[in-house]
Amino acid sequence: MVEIVEPMFDVAHLGHVELLSPKPDESLRFFTTILGMAETGRAGASVYLRCFGDYERSTLKLTDHHQSGVGHLAWRTTSPRALARRAEALASSGFGQGWIDGDLDHGPAYRFADPDGHVMEVYYEARRFQMAGREGSRLKNQPQRYPGIGVGVRRLDHVNMLCEEVTENRVFLEETLGFRLREQVILDDGSEAGAWLSVTPQVHDIAYTLDATRSRGRLHHLAFAADNREDVLRAADIYLENDVPIETGPAKHAITQGFFLYAYEPGGNRVEIFSGGYLIFAPDWEPVVWTQAERARGQAWGLRLPESFHSYGTPTVDVAKISLRELPVFDPR
Amino acid sequence: MVEIVEPMFDVAHLGHVELLSPKPDESLRFFTTILGMAETGRAGASVYLRCFGDYERSTLKLTDHHQSGVGHLAWRTTSPRALARRAEALASSGFGQGWIDGDLDHGPAYRFADPDGHVMEVYYEARRFQMAGREGSRLKNQPQRYPGIGVGVRRLDHVNMLCEEVTENRVFLEETLGFRLREQVILDDGSEAGAWLSVTPQVHDIAYTLDATRSRGRLHHLAFAADNREDVLRAADIYLENDVPIETGPAKHAITQGFFLYAYEPGGNRVEIFSGGYLIFAPDWEPVVWTQAERARGQAWGLRLPESFHSYGTPTVDVAKISLRELPVFDPR
Amino acid sequence: MVEIVEPMFDVAHLGHVELLSPKPDESLRFFTTILGMAETGRAGASVYLRCFGDYERSTLKLTDHHQSGVGHLAWRTTSPRALARRAEALASSGFGQGWIDGDLDHGPAYRFADPDGHVMEVYYEARRFQMAGREGSRLKNQPQRYPGIGVGVRRLDHVNMLCEEVTENRVFLEETLGFRLREQVILDDGSEAGAWLSVTPQVHDIAYTLDATRSRGRLHHLAFAADNREDVLRAADIYLENDVPIETGPAKHAITQGFFLYAYEPGGNRVEIFSGGYLIFAPDWEPVVWTQAERARGQAWGLRLPESFHSYGTPTVDVAKISLRELPVFDPR
Amino acid sequence: MVEIVEPMFDVAHLGHVELLSPKPDESLRFFTTILGMAETGRAGASVYLRCFGDYERSTLKLTDHHQSGVGHLAWRTTSPRALARRAEALASSGFGQGWIDGDLDHGPAYRFADPDGHVMEVYYEARRFQMAGREGSRLKNQPQRYPGIGVGVRRLDHVNMLCEEVTENRVFLEETLGFRLREQVILDDGSEAGAWLSVTPQVHDIAYTLDATRSRGRLHHLAFAADNREDVLRAADIYLENDVPIETGPAKHAITQGFFLYAYEPGGNRVEIFSGGYLIFAPDWEPVVWTQAERARGQAWGLRLPESFHSYGTPTVDVAKISLRELPVFDPR
Repeated sequence: MVEIVEPMFDVAHLGHVELLSPKPDESLRFFTTILGMAETGRAGASVYLRCFGDYERSTLKLTDHHQSGVGHLAWRTTSPRALARRAEALASSGFGQGWIDGDLDHGPAYRFADPDGHVMEVYYEARRFQMAGREGSRLKNQPQRYPGIGVGVRRLDHVNMLCEEVTENRVFLEETLGFRLREQVILDDGSEAGAWLSVTPQVHDIAYTLDATRSRGRLHHLAFAADNREDVLRAADIYLENDVPIETGPAKHAITQGFFLYAYEPGGNRVEIFSGGYLIFAPDWEPVVWTQAERARGQAWGLRLPESFHSYGTPTVDVAKISLRELPVFDPR
Repeated sequence: MVEIVEPMFDVAHLGHVELLSPKPDESLRFFTTILGMAETGRAGASVYLRCFGDYERSTLKLTDHHQSGVGHLAWRTTSPRALARRAEALASSGFGQGWIDGDLDHGPAYRFADPDGHVMEVYYEARRFQMAGREGSRLKNQPQRYPGIGVGVRRLDHVNMLCEEVTENRVFLEETLGFRLREQVILDDGSEAGAWLSVTPQVHDIAYTLDATRSRGRLHHLAFAADNREDVLRAADIYLENDVPIETGPAKHAITQGFFLYAYEPGGNRVEIFSGGYLIFAPDWEPVVWTQAERARGQAWGLRLPESFHSYGTPTVDVAKISLRELPVFDPR
Repeated sequence: MVEIVEPMFDVAHLGHVELLSPKPDESLRFFTTILGMAETGRAGASVYLRCFGDYERSTLKLTDHHQSGVGHLAWRTTSPRALARRAEALASSGFGQGWIDGDLDHGPAYRFADPDGHVMEVYYEARRFQMAGREGSRLKNQPQRYPGIGVGVRRLDHVNMLCEEVTENRVFLEETLGFRLREQVILDDGSEAGAWLSVTPQVHDIAYTLDATRSRGRLHHLAFAADNREDVLRAADIYLENDVPIETGPAKHAITQGFFLYAYEPGGNRVEIFSGGYLIFAPDWEPVVWTQAERARGQAWGLRLPESFHSYGTPTVDVAKISLRELPVFDPR
Repeated sequence: MVEIVEPMFDVAHLGHVELLSPKPDESLRFFTTILGMAETGRAGASVYLRCFGDYERSTLKLTDHHQSGVGHLAWRTTSPRALARRAEALASSGFGQGWIDGDLDHGPAYRFADPDGHVMEVYYEARRFQMAGREGSRLKNQPQRYPGIGVGVRRLDHVNMLCEEVTENRVFLEETLGFRLREQVILDDGSEAGAWLSVTPQVHDIAYTLDATRSRGRLHHLAFAADNREDVLRAADIYLENDVPIETGPAKHAITQGFFLYAYEPGGNRVEIFSGGYLIFAPDWEPVVWTQAERARGQAWGLRLPESFHSYGTPTVDVAKISLRELPVFDPR
């Protein structure tokens, strides 16, 4: 008898990312007036923000810190039971850290770090945060009004994490959280230079790419989704007028087919405006593998990325300063 | 002890639709030269087609028949076991019809009809159909080259089925196949005038809307996804030049937020070019309910749909003429 | 010997329009925060505004008045001599009214009214108003920074004037100012229902269309140019969220090929966001003549305009209350 | 008494360009199936083509020749008298060559070469070439149907000529043909590195840029106008799939604000797809002057152009092999 493994559907989507900024006021101004996000809360040294299409209270936690970086990122599970299962798997993996009570925008979360040291959480409890009144949308199916200011990004889309070694991190997410590998770069020496993974039909909810500096635990970028390629072009026009330093783009990636624009927010973290890509509905998707030679051809239309793209990143700094507790694993009965 | 029901993930996506055309040559020309789809096979009275972003061999089966209509539509499951589970559930529901051996583009399928009489199938076996050579794409992650001809639709997106009564059909899909209700219209008298459902993060893979003529089993439209709103506008320009009768649009729906263009293919079936909408990642999505008064306001920007939109449809005609067999239900052990 | 008439190039372009609003604060908010225009001056009961691509100090003069309407519109000439020639021609036509000293944003102007009673001016003196500092653009060839707020209209585009009879007004502009007829609607009874005229390669700088109410001197709409069709769609999204009443569109005109969106600003005047159209470089352009049957087919993609489109307008009210002087005609020697 | 010089309006627009290709069949396939242009005639070693928005019979003459290059380009005047005046001015300048009888698509033309050796003509006689039947458009104001194939460029837009020295060529066009200088690059040593000129409100109908190889008479590129930036992005997708070598773009120029895509047609000539830019209606436009430091910042969004952009060009080869005649200068009396 052969065991048939069915796909695991315990993680629903990327929930939020905590960014650290040494210039919190300027970063806040960037995310609100340039990207068009809304402030939805404040607590301690953090401001909480979200896009007009995000349904949770916040998808970005912007924390005042003396240096740039990423605090943590969080995955929402599909159910309370799914959370319990994932926390157990993470604990068994040896990478688990324990439970925290929650945050302004969600309930209990199980903390862990991937092998490279990026701090993450899984959580389930959150509520649909539908804005009303002046901030509400005339469209009932939209959590918040379209801002009509700045880029107007629709939602948090994905993260890209630099790492010292891709494979161990990729396998970790596949095995503990059920991520599926969508695209991959394998160099001539057989090593894995990049992996694009998702739990949703999006071609990536997270990517791991090689850190040219061989550092550990760094963030490459955080990406927000724009509705159209034209919105990304408009974003570049807005960046130009507001002295936001564009690193590269707008242009089209071969991997993911995404239409991209990379820039640095005032705190020094790299932010992408992303549109396009493709959706994967095949349950038996086979990863697309790119060779070293294929990657050497540049992006889809031939653009070469600048050197900084492979070397610049911002570190993980776990500023939570929370005492993790060995909460009993959630039991839904 | 309260039972916690976890979401069911047995159906992966809409697989294909069979359209019937009394003018098969003209319909074929429409789907290939106007929409930019590719012919990928022929068998019997049918031609098989797909879009450049569809990964299966075909997503549209165009069948020569003396009248317009829809033959059947098919849902691909997430695994062989999932297929077995769904076939069993369908058989138990009393709406199951039995197994067929398969078709040019897929393996064994379990046939059934929804309460309104729309013929459907569930299947699992299918293969990734990656075109090579002249028809292959320069992008490895694209099943086929971007056509550069006509509208250039990326993939089959969804179907909209007219029905005599919405609720029984909506509940049937929820209970037997795990569809989730995303949006809904409830009239002042409490009756349900429309339901938008999906198994994917798309806001709808299928919609049921009330048939103003109180007919049963009719197709409202079949929709193909375009990458951008600009592509939909360009589609209207192409339709104009090619005498394709535009029914309404391009404009924006309030429900689904989709940017639409409705027209009739030469065989008389309504076809939509769709872009936009929004993705639903929330595992605990609560359906958006629209009232009669809200619907009376027209589409998102105020457009009124023409009378034909609520009365014109094409019937289900099960032209398979296949002898359904009581195949033993698949047993993966 | 046959006299060969060469084209007249004395009028350069539409300079500005004065709109009257009974709700001046709300109108101002509309033009600045919804359309993204900049306030560039105030004098008396008027606020002066322009778009980021307009090179003169202002293209819109918004005047507080107890009723909606248009004050006047103005044409800039190609040279001082051209101004002298046009003033002389206007004086000879019997429709001239005399000189005014100028306004905040331009020098001496010759006033006149067309046969239908729309008040107009011709002027030459104006200066390039390049904004600097925070309001300046990072692009030296752009008069002002791209706003990144609201629709972001690039420039004043054209006006459409309702009139009791089209022909006399059209001929008046052709003969006194050198306008060229680009497109035209001729009804079955031989009467002219609309005329689209320009002095630039734009398909229209001004249009005259029949007033279904047989009123005189009314404004149909004022139009601002957006860079792309996508910008017009985005404008509709912004209008929706800000309760700006959309009359019709976005859609494509057959006449002019323009992509349009019509709405009412808070003062009650109709405003169009316009993109596309086509440029006419042919020196011997022959007007495109549309028949009654052709117009009955609706807009390019079949849309029917609402009844209000043919009956609603806002009147000309000459609020200048200036004493026109019989200035000596400008003599450049 | 000061003489006031009024603007000269004798040249209406760029009429056509003759390209030479050593691979005429492949070049023809590029212009028809990739760009979507229509073949409108053949004569001798040449095929005549135009875009769907071009009103003359042809705007591109594609000539079989053993090497790449440009044969000539032609300017249409505003009237027969204007042609006579320009021919006289050209003859007086010492750069005139004499009259030719005309070509398939136009009447008598006066030939000349600019100081750098680019062969040009001025002509007036041409006819509006409105296609009917299958090739006609459903829009009466469009000379030809929108192709729905390939990029779908709307019209010939401009040319960019490399030259050994910019100033003498720029002044030549200003003085003999009335071109107006719109933008300019002046290096730190005071030399002129580029000049963008037009007779229309377009920011350039022709540009002269410095040839890094100090060659004479070379073509930098020929540009076709696309309606939207999205069309330019789509063009890049089409180029990718058809192995058309992209040199750089899509991206946005700072100079002209144009959104560009540069590639090589099979014959080796550089072709641009252009959209955007801005229109100049000011009769007293003052040229925008860019410094060396400003140019060093790259394109609008920071892109660096590849080395080939400044060194690659294709030569002028006057393949007309026509005997120029000293036709009496046209006398319209």
